[in-house]
Amino acid sequence: MRKLKTDQEITRITNFIGDYCFRAGITKVVLGLSGGIDSSLSAALAVQALGKENVTGLLLPYKNSHPDSAGHAGLLADQLEIQTFTIDISPMVDAYFDNTAPDASMLRRGNFMARMRMSVLYDYSSRIPALVLGTGNRTEILVGYFTQHGDGACALEPIGHLYKTEVWAMARVLGIPEAIINKTPTADLWNGQTDEGELGITYPELDKILYELTELDVNSNASANLSFPKEKYELVEKLMSRSAFKRNPVPVLD
Amino acid sequence: MRKLKTDQEITRITNFIGDYCFRAGITKVVLGLSGGIDSSLSAALAVQALGKENVTGLLLPYKNSHPDSAGHAGLLADQLEIQTFTIDISPMVDAYFDNTAPDASMLRRGNFMARMRMSVLYDYSSRIPALVLGTGNRTEILVGYFTQHGDGACALEPIGHLYKTEVWAMARVLGIPEAIINKTPTADLWNGQTDEGELGITYPELDKILYELTELDVNSNASANLSFPKEKYELVEKLMSRSAFKRNPVPVLD
Repeated sequence: MRKLKTDQEITRITNFIGDYCFRAGITKVVLGLSGGIDSSLSAALAVQALGKENVTGLLLPYKNSHPDSAGHAGLLADQLEIQTFTIDISPMVDAYFDNTAPDASMLRRGNFMARMRMSVLYDYSSRIPALVLGTGNRTEILVGYFTQHGDGACALEPIGHLYKTEVWAMARVLGIPEAIINKTPTADLWNGQTDEGELGITYPELDKILYELTELDVNSNASANLSFPKEKYELVEKLMSRSAFKRNPVPVLD
Repeated sequence: MRKLKTDQEITRITNFIGDYCFRAGITKVVLGLSGGIDSSLSAALAVQALGKENVTGLLLPYKNSHPDSAGHAGLLADQLEIQTFTIDISPMVDAYFDNTAPDASMLRRGNFMARMRMSVLYDYSSRIPALVLGTGNRTEILVGYFTQHGDGACALEPIGHLYKTEVWAMARVLGIPEAIINKTPTADLWNGQTDEGELGITYPELDKILYELTELDVNSNASANLSFPKEKYELVEKLMSRSAFKRNPVPVLD
Protein backbone atom coordinates (compact mmCIF):
# COMPACT_ATOMS: atom_id res chain seq x y z
CA MET A 1 0.00 0.00 0.00
CA ARG A 2 1.21 3.51 -0.76
CA LYS A 3 2.45 5.72 2.07
CA LEU A 4 0.66 9.02 2.46
CA LYS A 5 2.57 12.07 3.65
CA THR A 6 -0.31 13.54 5.59
CA ASP A 7 1.06 17.06 6.15
CA GLN A 8 1.92 17.45 2.49
CA GLU A 9 -1.45 16.03 1.56
CA ILE A 10 -3.34 18.50 3.74
CA THR A 11 -1.58 21.36 1.97
CA ARG A 12 -2.29 19.89 -1.43
CA ILE A 13 -6.02 19.44 -0.66
CA THR A 14 -6.52 22.85 0.93
CA ASN A 15 -4.82 24.44 -2.09
CA PHE A 16 -7.09 22.44 -4.37
CA ILE A 17 -10.23 23.65 -2.58
CA GLY A 18 -8.99 27.22 -2.38
CA ASP A 19 -7.91 27.39 -6.02
CA TYR A 20 -11.11 25.85 -7.30
CA CYS A 21 -13.30 28.27 -5.37
CA PHE A 22 -11.15 31.21 -6.44
CA ARG A 23 -11.42 30.29 -10.11
CA ALA A 24 -15.19 29.77 -9.75
CA GLY A 25 -15.47 33.19 -8.11
CA ILE A 26 -17.27 31.71 -5.11
CA THR A 27 -15.79 31.93 -1.63
CA LYS A 28 -18.07 29.52 0.21
CA VAL A 29 -18.85 25.80 0.24
CA VAL A 30 -21.76 23.81 1.60
CA LEU A 31 -21.67 20.10 2.36
CA GLY A 32 -23.85 17.46 3.89
CA LEU A 33 -22.71 16.37 7.35
CA SER A 34 -23.70 12.77 8.03
CA GLY A 35 -21.73 12.38 11.22
CA GLY A 36 -19.42 10.01 9.37
CA ILE A 37 -15.72 10.30 8.84
CA ASP A 38 -15.74 11.30 5.15
CA SER A 39 -17.91 14.38 5.53
CA SER A 40 -16.15 15.26 8.80
CA LEU A 41 -12.73 15.18 7.15
CA SER A 42 -14.01 17.10 4.11
CA ALA A 43 -15.44 19.79 6.37
CA ALA A 44 -12.24 20.08 8.37
CA LEU A 45 -10.17 20.47 5.19
CA ALA A 46 -12.60 23.07 3.84
CA VAL A 47 -12.28 25.08 7.06
CA GLN A 48 -8.48 25.04 6.71
CA ALA A 49 -8.79 26.11 3.07
CA LEU A 50 -11.49 28.77 3.30
CA GLY A 51 -11.99 29.67 6.95
CA LYS A 52 -14.82 28.55 9.22
CA GLU A 53 -17.09 31.41 8.19
CA ASN A 54 -17.10 30.10 4.61
CA VAL A 55 -18.18 26.53 5.35
CA THR A 56 -21.80 25.55 5.99
CA GLY A 57 -22.84 22.06 7.02
CA LEU A 58 -26.31 20.71 6.30
CA LEU A 59 -27.74 17.95 8.46
CA LEU A 60 -30.25 16.10 6.32
CA PRO A 61 -31.83 13.39 8.46
CA TYR A 62 -34.57 11.00 7.49
CA LYS A 63 -36.87 9.92 10.30
CA ASN A 64 -35.18 6.51 10.60
CA SER A 65 -31.62 7.90 10.60
CA HIS A 66 -29.49 6.65 13.50
CA PRO A 67 -29.61 9.20 16.34
CA ASP A 68 -25.78 9.18 16.49
CA SER A 69 -25.65 10.64 12.97
CA ALA A 70 -26.98 14.02 14.02
CA GLY A 71 -25.08 13.85 17.32
CA HIS A 72 -21.74 13.27 15.63
CA ALA A 73 -22.41 15.86 12.95
CA GLY A 74 -23.16 18.36 15.71
CA LEU A 75 -20.00 17.40 17.58
CA LEU A 76 -17.91 18.00 14.47
CA ALA A 77 -19.60 21.30 13.67
CA ASP A 78 -19.04 22.51 17.24
CA GLN A 79 -15.37 21.61 17.05
CA LEU A 80 -14.92 23.36 13.69
CA GLU A 81 -17.20 26.24 14.77
CA ILE A 82 -19.10 26.13 11.49
CA GLN A 83 -22.71 27.06 10.91
CA THR A 84 -25.16 24.21 10.38
CA PHE A 85 -28.78 23.90 9.34
CA THR A 86 -30.98 20.85 9.69
CA ILE A 87 -33.51 19.97 7.02
CA ASP A 88 -35.55 16.83 7.55
CA ILE A 89 -35.95 15.07 4.21
CA SER A 90 -38.73 12.77 5.51
CA PRO A 91 -41.65 14.81 4.10
CA MET A 92 -40.17 14.75 0.58
CA VAL A 93 -39.25 11.08 0.69
CA ASP A 94 -42.58 10.04 2.16
CA ALA A 95 -44.55 12.22 -0.27
CA TYR A 96 -43.10 10.09 -3.05
CA PHE A 97 -43.13 6.56 -1.63
CA ASP A 98 -46.39 6.78 0.33
CA ASN A 99 -48.23 7.91 -2.80
CA THR A 100 -46.61 5.80 -5.50
CA ALA A 101 -44.59 2.90 -4.10
CA PRO A 102 -45.28 2.07 -0.45
CA ASP A 103 -43.66 -1.36 -0.94
CA ALA A 104 -40.33 -0.03 -2.27
CA SER A 105 -37.18 -1.82 -1.11
CA MET A 106 -34.68 -0.29 1.29
CA LEU A 107 -32.19 0.03 -1.56
CA ARG A 108 -34.62 2.10 -3.63
CA ARG A 109 -35.45 4.22 -0.60
CA GLY A 110 -31.78 4.71 0.18
CA ASN A 111 -30.95 5.88 -3.32
CA PHE A 112 -33.95 8.19 -3.33
CA MET A 113 -32.90 9.70 0.00
CA ALA A 114 -29.41 10.34 -1.34
CA ARG A 115 -30.95 12.20 -4.29
CA MET A 116 -33.21 14.24 -2.02
CA ARG A 117 -30.12 15.25 -0.04
CA MET A 118 -28.35 16.23 -3.26
CA SER A 119 -31.36 18.32 -4.32
CA VAL A 120 -31.45 20.17 -1.01
CA LEU A 121 -27.67 20.74 -1.03
CA TYR A 122 -27.73 22.15 -4.55
CA ASP A 123 -30.69 24.37 -3.77
CA TYR A 124 -28.96 25.59 -0.65
CA SER A 125 -25.75 26.19 -2.55
CA SER A 126 -27.52 28.46 -5.03
CA ARG A 127 -29.10 30.37 -2.17
CA ILE A 128 -25.87 31.17 -0.29
CA PRO A 129 -24.23 31.12 -3.00
CA ALA A 130 -21.70 28.36 -2.41
CA LEU A 131 -20.21 25.35 -4.13
CA VAL A 132 -21.37 21.87 -3.15
CA LEU A 133 -18.34 20.13 -1.64
CA GLY A 134 -18.15 16.39 -2.26
CA THR A 135 -17.35 13.92 0.48
CA GLY A 136 -16.59 10.76 -1.51
CA ASN A 137 -13.35 8.83 -1.06
CA ARG A 138 -11.38 6.91 -3.70
CA THR A 139 -12.43 3.53 -2.35
CA GLU A 140 -16.16 4.10 -2.58
CA ILE A 141 -15.85 5.89 -5.92
CA LEU A 142 -13.90 2.98 -7.46
CA VAL A 143 -16.31 0.29 -6.27
CA GLY A 144 -19.41 2.41 -6.96
CA TYR A 145 -20.52 2.50 -3.35
CA PHE A 146 -22.45 5.73 -3.79
CA THR A 147 -25.69 6.91 -5.39
CA GLN A 148 -25.29 8.39 -8.84
CA HIS A 149 -26.71 11.95 -8.79
CA GLY A 150 -26.98 11.53 -5.04
CA ASP A 151 -24.00 11.63 -2.70
CA GLY A 152 -21.82 11.33 -5.82
CA ALA A 153 -22.94 14.79 -7.01
CA CYS A 154 -20.75 17.79 -6.20
CA ALA A 155 -18.64 20.59 -7.63
CA LEU A 156 -15.35 19.05 -6.49
CA GLU A 157 -14.17 16.00 -4.53
CA PRO A 158 -11.56 17.08 -1.96
CA ILE A 159 -10.90 13.55 -0.69
CA GLY A 160 -11.84 11.63 -3.84
CA HIS A 161 -8.23 10.53 -4.32
CA LEU A 162 -7.85 9.10 -0.78
CA TYR A 163 -8.48 5.46 0.06
CA LYS A 164 -10.76 4.91 3.04
CA THR A 165 -7.86 3.80 5.24
CA GLU A 166 -6.08 7.04 4.31
CA VAL A 167 -9.20 8.99 5.29
CA TRP A 168 -8.88 7.49 8.76
CA ALA A 169 -5.20 8.43 8.94
CA MET A 170 -5.88 11.99 7.79
CA ALA A 171 -8.79 12.35 10.22
CA ARG A 172 -6.51 11.47 13.15
CA VAL A 173 -3.96 14.07 12.10
CA LEU A 174 -6.66 16.72 11.81
CA GLY A 175 -8.12 15.90 15.21
CA ILE A 176 -11.56 14.70 14.13
CA PRO A 177 -13.41 13.51 17.27
CA GLU A 178 -12.58 9.92 18.22
CA ALA A 179 -16.26 8.97 18.37
CA ILE A 180 -16.47 9.67 14.65
CA ILE A 181 -13.19 7.98 13.75
CA ASN A 182 -13.92 4.84 15.74
CA LYS A 183 -17.47 4.07 14.68
CA THR A 184 -18.31 1.41 12.13
CA PRO A 185 -18.67 2.97 8.65
CA THR A 186 -22.25 2.99 7.41
CA ALA A 187 -24.28 4.83 4.81
CA ASP A 188 -27.05 4.82 7.48
CA LEU A 189 -29.72 4.20 4.88
CA TRP A 190 -31.29 1.50 7.02
CA ASN A 191 -30.90 0.11 10.50
CA GLY A 192 -27.88 -2.19 10.89
CA GLN A 193 -26.38 -1.35 7.49
CA THR A 194 -22.58 -1.35 7.42
CA ASP A 195 -20.33 -0.59 4.45
CA GLU A 196 -18.15 -3.65 4.96
CA GLY A 197 -21.17 -5.92 5.37
CA GLU A 198 -22.67 -4.70 2.13
CA LEU A 199 -19.43 -4.76 0.18
CA GLY A 200 -18.46 -8.20 1.49
CA ILE A 201 -14.89 -7.22 2.32
CA THR A 202 -13.08 -5.15 4.97
CA TYR A 203 -11.75 -1.70 4.10
CA PRO A 204 -8.05 -2.56 4.73
CA GLU A 205 -8.35 -5.52 2.35
CA LEU A 206 -10.38 -3.57 -0.18
CA ASP A 207 -7.95 -0.65 -0.21
CA LYS A 208 -4.91 -2.84 -0.66
CA ILE A 209 -6.56 -4.74 -3.52
CA LEU A 210 -7.79 -1.54 -5.20
CA TYR A 211 -4.31 -0.09 -4.90
CA GLU A 212 -2.78 -3.17 -6.54
CA LEU A 213 -5.43 -3.32 -9.27
CA THR A 214 -5.45 0.36 -10.19
CA GLU A 215 -1.92 1.49 -9.42
CA LEU A 216 0.26 -1.63 -9.74
CA ASP A 217 -1.42 -3.31 -12.72
CA VAL A 218 -2.14 -6.48 -10.75
CA ASN A 219 -5.22 -8.48 -11.78
CA SER A 220 -6.95 -11.58 -10.47
CA ASN A 221 -5.35 -13.72 -13.20
CA ALA A 222 -1.83 -12.75 -12.17
CA SER A 223 0.27 -15.85 -11.69
CA ALA A 224 2.44 -14.04 -9.15
CA ASN A 225 1.71 -14.28 -5.46
CA LEU A 226 -1.43 -12.34 -4.58
CA SER A 227 -1.72 -10.72 -1.14
CA PHE A 228 -5.20 -12.23 -0.61
CA PRO A 229 -7.18 -15.16 -2.05
CA LYS A 230 -7.95 -14.80 -5.75
CA GLU A 231 -11.71 -14.61 -5.00
CA LYS A 232 -11.27 -11.31 -3.21
CA TYR A 233 -9.60 -9.78 -6.26
CA GLU A 234 -12.41 -11.11 -8.42
CA LEU A 235 -14.99 -9.57 -6.09
CA VAL A 236 -13.30 -6.17 -6.30
CA GLU A 237 -12.91 -6.40 -10.08
CA LYS A 238 -16.61 -7.16 -10.32
CA LEU A 239 -17.55 -4.22 -8.09
CA MET A 240 -15.40 -1.93 -10.24
CA SER A 241 -16.68 -3.09 -13.61
CA ARG A 242 -20.34 -3.14 -12.55
CA SER A 243 -20.12 0.46 -11.38
CA ALA A 244 -18.08 1.85 -14.28
CA PHE A 245 -21.20 3.54 -15.70
CA LYS A 246 -21.43 5.67 -12.57
CA ARG A 247 -17.98 7.14 -13.13
CA ASN A 248 -17.95 7.46 -16.91
CA PRO A 249 -19.28 10.42 -18.88
CA VAL A 250 -22.75 9.92 -20.38
CA PRO A 251 -22.39 8.30 -23.83
CA VAL A 252 -23.25 10.61 -26.74
CA LEU A 253 -22.74 9.96 -30.46
CA ASP A 254 -20.12 12.01 -32.34
CA MET B 1 -24.39 24.61 -41.00
CA ARG B 2 -23.79 20.90 -41.44
CA LYS B 3 -26.29 18.87 -43.48
CA LEU B 4 -27.84 15.95 -41.64
CA LYS B 5 -28.70 12.78 -43.55
CA THR B 6 -31.78 11.99 -41.52
CA ASP B 7 -32.34 8.38 -42.64
CA GLN B 8 -28.74 7.47 -41.92
CA GLU B 9 -28.92 9.30 -38.61
CA ILE B 10 -32.02 7.41 -37.51
CA THR B 11 -30.21 4.12 -38.12
CA ARG B 12 -27.13 5.33 -36.29
CA ILE B 13 -29.15 6.44 -33.24
CA THR B 14 -31.33 3.34 -33.05
CA ASN B 15 -28.19 1.17 -33.24
CA PHE B 16 -26.64 3.26 -30.48
CA ILE B 17 -29.65 2.77 -28.20
CA GLY B 18 -29.94 -0.92 -29.03
CA ASP B 19 -26.23 -1.65 -28.57
CA TYR B 20 -26.01 0.23 -25.30
CA CYS B 21 -28.99 -1.59 -23.81
CA PHE B 22 -27.67 -4.93 -25.05
CA ARG B 23 -24.27 -4.38 -23.44
CA ALA B 24 -25.93 -3.24 -20.20
CA GLY B 25 -28.08 -6.38 -20.23
CA ILE B 26 -31.26 -4.31 -19.92
CA THR B 27 -33.92 -4.38 -22.64
CA LYS B 28 -36.07 -1.47 -21.51
CA VAL B 29 -35.80 2.30 -21.20
CA VAL B 30 -37.80 4.86 -19.28
CA LEU B 31 -37.86 8.56 -20.05
CA GLY B 32 -39.66 11.68 -18.92
CA LEU B 33 -42.21 12.94 -21.45
CA SER B 34 -42.63 16.68 -21.18
CA GLY B 35 -44.75 17.09 -24.29
CA GLY B 36 -41.83 18.88 -25.91
CA ILE B 37 -39.99 17.95 -29.05
CA ASP B 38 -36.80 16.58 -27.48
CA SER B 39 -38.46 13.94 -25.33
CA SER B 40 -40.91 13.15 -28.13
CA LEU B 41 -38.11 12.50 -30.60
CA SER B 42 -36.12 10.50 -28.05
CA ALA B 43 -39.16 8.32 -27.35
CA ALA B 44 -39.82 7.74 -31.05
CA LEU B 45 -36.21 6.70 -31.63
CA ALA B 46 -36.30 4.38 -28.61
CA VAL B 47 -39.44 2.71 -29.97
CA GLN B 48 -37.69 2.11 -33.29
CA ALA B 49 -34.65 0.73 -31.48
CA LEU B 50 -36.29 -1.44 -28.82
CA GLY B 51 -39.95 -1.89 -29.69
CA LYS B 52 -42.90 -0.08 -28.14
CA GLU B 53 -43.28 -2.65 -25.36
CA ASN B 54 -39.80 -1.72 -24.08
CA VAL B 55 -40.32 2.03 -23.75
CA THR B 56 -42.10 3.62 -20.79
CA GLY B 57 -42.88 7.33 -20.61
CA LEU B 58 -43.31 9.12 -17.31
CA LEU B 59 -45.38 12.29 -17.14
CA LEU B 60 -44.07 14.28 -14.19
CA PRO B 61 -46.19 17.40 -13.86
CA TYR B 62 -45.94 20.07 -11.23
CA LYS B 63 -49.19 21.80 -10.35
CA ASN B 64 -48.30 24.92 -12.33
CA SER B 65 -47.18 23.00 -15.46
CA HIS B 66 -48.81 24.20 -18.68
CA PRO B 67 -51.87 22.01 -19.43
CA ASP B 68 -50.56 21.45 -22.97
CA SER B 69 -47.53 19.62 -21.56
CA ALA B 70 -49.53 16.61 -20.42
CA GLY B 71 -51.80 16.83 -23.46
CA HIS B 72 -48.92 16.72 -25.91
CA ALA B 73 -47.14 13.97 -23.98
CA GLY B 74 -50.33 11.92 -24.13
CA LEU B 75 -50.71 12.58 -27.85
CA LEU B 76 -47.18 11.34 -28.48
CA ALA B 77 -47.61 8.27 -26.26
CA ASP B 78 -50.86 7.38 -28.06
CA GLN B 79 -49.17 7.65 -31.43
CA LEU B 80 -46.21 5.51 -30.34
CA GLU B 81 -48.50 3.16 -28.37
CA ILE B 82 -46.21 3.22 -25.37
CA GLN B 83 -47.16 2.80 -21.74
CA THR B 84 -47.15 5.93 -19.58
CA PHE B 85 -47.52 6.70 -15.92
CA THR B 86 -48.18 10.07 -14.35
CA ILE B 87 -46.55 11.05 -11.08
CA ASP B 88 -47.30 14.51 -9.75
CA ILE B 89 -44.12 15.96 -8.24
CA SER B 90 -45.99 18.78 -6.46
CA PRO B 91 -46.12 17.10 -3.03
CA MET B 92 -42.35 16.56 -3.01
CA VAL B 93 -41.52 20.02 -4.27
CA ASP B 94 -43.95 21.73 -1.91
CA ALA B 95 -42.81 19.64 1.07
CA TYR B 96 -39.40 21.22 0.61
CA PHE B 97 -40.15 24.83 -0.28
CA ASP B 98 -43.19 25.35 1.94
CA ASN B 99 -41.19 24.20 4.97
CA THR B 100 -37.79 25.73 4.34
CA ALA B 101 -37.85 28.40 1.64
CA PRO B 102 -41.31 29.71 0.74
CA ASP B 103 -39.72 32.79 -0.89
CA ALA B 104 -37.47 30.81 -3.27
CA SER B 105 -37.06 32.17 -6.81
CA MET B 106 -38.57 30.54 -9.88
CA LEU B 107 -35.07 29.52 -10.99
CA ARG B 108 -34.43 27.66 -7.74
CA ARG B 109 -37.83 26.03 -7.94
CA GLY B 110 -37.24 25.04 -11.55
CA ASN B 111 -33.91 23.40 -10.81
CA PHE B 112 -35.40 21.61 -7.84
CA MET B 113 -38.29 20.30 -9.95
CA ALA B 114 -35.86 18.98 -12.54
CA ARG B 115 -34.04 17.09 -9.78
CA MET B 116 -37.28 15.67 -8.39
CA ARG B 117 -38.08 14.41 -11.89
CA MET B 118 -34.64 12.82 -12.14
CA SER B 119 -35.12 11.15 -8.74
CA VAL B 120 -38.48 9.70 -9.78
CA LEU B 121 -37.13 8.54 -13.15
CA TYR B 122 -34.15 6.79 -11.57
CA ASP B 123 -36.33 5.15 -8.94
CA TYR B 124 -38.73 4.01 -11.63
CA SER B 125 -35.89 2.71 -13.75
CA SER B 126 -34.64 0.51 -10.91
CA ARG B 127 -38.15 -0.82 -10.40
CA ILE B 128 -38.79 -1.91 -14.00
CA PRO B 129 -35.69 -2.43 -14.47
CA ALA B 130 -34.84 -0.04 -17.28
CA LEU B 131 -32.24 2.50 -18.28
CA VAL B 132 -33.00 6.20 -17.98
CA LEU B 133 -32.97 7.59 -21.50
CA GLY B 134 -31.73 11.16 -21.83
CA THR B 135 -33.55 13.76 -23.89
CA GLY B 136 -30.94 16.51 -24.13
CA ASN B 137 -29.83 17.96 -27.47
CA ARG B 138 -26.38 19.25 -28.44
CA THR B 139 -27.47 22.88 -28.36
CA GLU B 140 -28.76 22.88 -24.81
CA ILE B 141 -25.88 20.73 -23.58
CA LEU B 142 -23.27 23.10 -25.07
CA VAL B 143 -24.84 26.25 -23.61
CA GLY B 144 -25.69 24.58 -20.30
CA TYR B 145 -29.43 25.06 -20.68
CA PHE B 146 -30.27 22.16 -18.41
CA THR B 147 -30.21 21.34 -14.70
CA GLN B 148 -27.15 19.45 -13.55
CA HIS B 149 -28.28 16.19 -11.89
CA GLY B 150 -31.75 17.01 -13.17
CA ASP B 151 -32.78 16.70 -16.81
CA GLY B 152 -29.06 16.34 -17.59
CA ALA B 153 -28.94 12.99 -15.75
CA CYS B 154 -29.34 9.79 -17.77
CA ALA B 155 -27.68 6.55 -18.83
CA LEU B 156 -27.25 7.68 -22.44
CA GLU B 157 -28.10 10.68 -24.62
CA PRO B 158 -29.65 9.48 -27.90
CA ILE B 159 -30.00 12.99 -29.38
CA GLY B 160 -27.17 14.66 -27.47
CA HIS B 161 -25.20 15.13 -30.70
CA LEU B 162 -28.07 16.86 -32.58
CA TYR B 163 -28.48 20.62 -32.71
CA LYS B 164 -31.99 21.84 -31.86
CA THR B 165 -32.73 22.71 -35.49
CA GLU B 166 -31.72 19.15 -36.41
CA VAL B 167 -34.10 17.83 -33.74
CA TRP B 168 -36.91 19.63 -35.57
CA ALA B 169 -35.85 18.14 -38.88
CA MET B 170 -35.63 14.62 -37.46
CA ALA B 171 -38.98 14.99 -35.72
CA ARG B 172 -40.66 15.81 -39.04
CA VAL B 173 -39.17 12.75 -40.70
CA LEU B 174 -40.32 10.54 -37.83
CA GLY B 175 -43.85 11.93 -37.91
CA ILE B 176 -43.95 13.53 -34.47
CA PRO B 177 -47.33 15.32 -34.13
CA GLU B 178 -47.32 18.82 -35.66
CA ALA B 179 -48.70 20.35 -32.46
CA ILE B 180 -45.48 19.31 -30.71
CA ILE B 181 -43.17 20.35 -33.54
CA ASN B 182 -44.75 23.75 -33.97
CA LYS B 183 -45.00 24.97 -30.41
CA THR B 184 -42.55 27.42 -28.90
CA PRO B 185 -39.77 25.58 -27.05
CA THR B 186 -39.98 25.99 -23.29
CA ALA B 187 -38.66 24.23 -20.21
CA ASP B 188 -42.13 24.96 -18.74
CA LEU B 189 -40.65 25.72 -15.35
CA TRP B 190 -42.76 28.84 -15.03
CA ASN B 191 -45.56 30.52 -16.89
CA GLY B 192 -44.45 32.32 -20.04
CA GLN B 193 -40.92 30.92 -20.01
CA THR B 194 -39.42 30.29 -23.44
CA ASP B 195 -35.98 28.88 -24.25
CA GLU B 196 -35.15 31.59 -26.76
CA GLY B 197 -36.31 34.34 -24.40
CA GLU B 198 -34.10 33.04 -21.63
CA LEU B 199 -31.09 32.39 -23.84
CA GLY B 200 -31.38 35.75 -25.59
CA ILE B 201 -30.95 34.32 -29.08
CA THR B 202 -33.02 32.28 -31.55
CA TYR B 203 -32.27 28.60 -32.07
CA PRO B 204 -31.33 28.91 -35.77
CA GLU B 205 -28.79 31.62 -34.88
CA LEU B 206 -27.55 29.75 -31.84
CA ASP B 207 -27.08 26.49 -33.74
CA LYS B 208 -25.16 28.11 -36.56
CA ILE B 209 -22.89 29.94 -34.14
CA LEU B 210 -22.32 26.81 -32.03
CA TYR B 211 -21.51 24.86 -35.16
CA GLU B 212 -18.96 27.46 -36.23
CA LEU B 213 -17.43 27.75 -32.74
CA THR B 214 -17.19 24.03 -31.99
CA GLU B 215 -16.74 22.45 -35.39
CA LEU B 216 -15.14 25.12 -37.59
CA ASP B 217 -12.77 26.74 -35.07
CA VAL B 218 -14.34 30.15 -35.50
CA ASN B 219 -14.22 32.50 -32.52
CA SER B 220 -15.59 35.95 -31.77
CA ASN B 221 -12.17 37.52 -32.38
CA ALA B 222 -11.93 36.13 -35.90
CA SER B 223 -11.11 38.91 -38.31
CA ALA B 224 -12.88 37.05 -41.11
CA ASN B 225 -16.48 37.77 -41.94
CA LEU B 226 -18.77 36.46 -39.21
CA SER B 227 -22.29 35.29 -40.11
CA PHE B 228 -23.83 37.38 -37.31
CA PRO B 229 -22.79 40.39 -35.23
CA LYS B 230 -19.76 39.76 -33.03
CA GLU B 231 -21.89 40.28 -29.88
CA LYS B 232 -23.89 37.14 -30.64
CA TYR B 233 -20.71 35.07 -30.80
CA GLU B 234 -19.59 36.59 -27.53
CA LEU B 235 -22.92 35.73 -25.93
CA VAL B 236 -22.64 32.10 -27.04
CA GLU B 237 -19.01 31.86 -25.92
CA LYS B 238 -20.05 33.18 -22.54
CA LEU B 239 -22.92 30.67 -22.25
CA MET B 240 -20.51 27.86 -23.12
CA SER B 241 -17.73 28.84 -20.75
CA ARG B 242 -20.07 29.59 -17.84
CA SER B 243 -21.63 26.14 -18.11
CA ALA B 244 -18.44 24.15 -18.67
CA PHE B 245 -18.58 22.83 -15.09
CA LYS B 246 -21.88 21.10 -15.89
CA ARG B 247 -20.29 19.06 -18.67
CA ASN B 248 -16.89 18.34 -17.19
CA PRO B 249 -16.06 15.44 -14.88
CA VAL B 250 -15.91 16.34 -11.18
CA PRO B 251 -12.38 17.49 -10.32
CA VAL B 252 -10.41 15.07 -8.14
CA LEU B 253 -6.71 15.24 -7.22
CA ASP B 254 -4.34 12.62 -8.64
